[in-house]
Amino acid sequence: MHYPNNIKKNITKITNYANRGMDLESEINDSNEYYIEINRALIYKKPTPIGISKASYTPHGRKIDEGYFLAPSTLDYNGLYKGKYIEFEAKETQNKTSFPLANIHNHQILHLKKVLEHQGIAFLLIKMCGILYLLKGEDLIDFINNNTRKSIPLSYLQEKGYLIKPAIHPNYPYLDTVDEIYFRKDR
Amino acid sequence: MHYPNNIKKNITKITNYANRGMDLESEINDSNEYYIEINRALIYKKPTPIGISKASYTPHGRKIDEGYFLAPSTLDYNGLYKGKYIEFEAKETQNKTSFPLANIHNHQILHLKKVLEHQGIAFLLIKMCGILYLLKGEDLIDFINNNTRKSIPLSYLQEKGYLIKPAIHPNYPYLDTVDEIYFRKDR
Repeated sequence: MHYPNNIKKNITKITNYANRGMDLESEINDSNEYYIEINRALIYKKPTPIGISKASYTPHGRKIDEGYFLAPSTLDYNGLYKGKYIEFEAKETQNKTSFPLANIHNHQILHLKKVLEHQGIAFLLIKMCGILYLLKGEDLIDFINNNTRKSIPLSYLQEKGYLIKPAIHPNYPYLDTVDEIYFRKDR
Repeated sequence: MHYPNNIKKNITKITNYANRGMDLESEINDSNEYYIEINRALIYKKPTPIGISKASYTPHGRKIDEGYFLAPSTLDYNGLYKGKYIEFEAKETQNKTSFPLANIHNHQILHLKKVLEHQGIAFLLIKMCGILYLLKGEDLIDFINNNTRKSIPLSYLQEKGYLIKPAIHPNYPYLDTVDEIYFRKDR
């Protein structure tokens, strides 16, 4: 589940191997910080869009006194890697058999389609049963076009997805997988 | 100043340097909406990053009870055009003779350098004396490297910048200029 700006919902956290005390968003943020640090890629999480209903001025700048989170119309992460535009969403599900498509807004799916159309790289990172998969945008669209069901079964992820092997630092070096898929020399 | 999603602050508008930029911002947002509508490009303004100090839950979702705007570390706009990564900042100055570099944070300039290094397109849109110029990131860096002064004189913009001709809809069809500079067939 996604808690913008690291403010966590005050619920008991389920400790399992997958979580290891860190949520997926933090892990991907770590990967991105690491990649920026070693100058491998420039990929950032977009700030969550907010609507401001009350604000005031303080000596330190404008202050938000009341605001709401808005639904994003693009994917959470975007940036530049090896001269290519890259955009993706990272989602975790506690569901053990399938990934509910309700996790992704319809306009985000439309946006993902457009990114592909404009020759960008687009994918989902889906964490399920402690395993992180990269599902290419093309395979997501293909699934949606050819299925009426509202969730992607684990078997589809196992068949079409790419496993992102966990490591020490960063936890998920997902660009190695991106290299394999999108930048293989024999492609 | 940026009010996401057209939610306007209900206070008397303070006319200051920062606010004057809003007109240009709205114009560039209009251009981007138009480009998305006609499916020419996917370029968005990034939401302003905020820090949340107090939040609560409501039946309609999480509510921000206190928040602050943070300084952005990247440029305001980014996206995908003709398969290329594009990132830029749009700034307006009331100054008639030069563009103060203080308008752009140091870490934004460092970021711009990295975008160029990773083969992205990066530039500034600078509105001065009612005229909108596109200054290539390369020419900005060149100016900074070869000058000690803290503002870009109008003459430099006139010499190195590209004029963005105003039109009816959108007001600033800046991608036509981007085409000329970055996608000319004889390049």
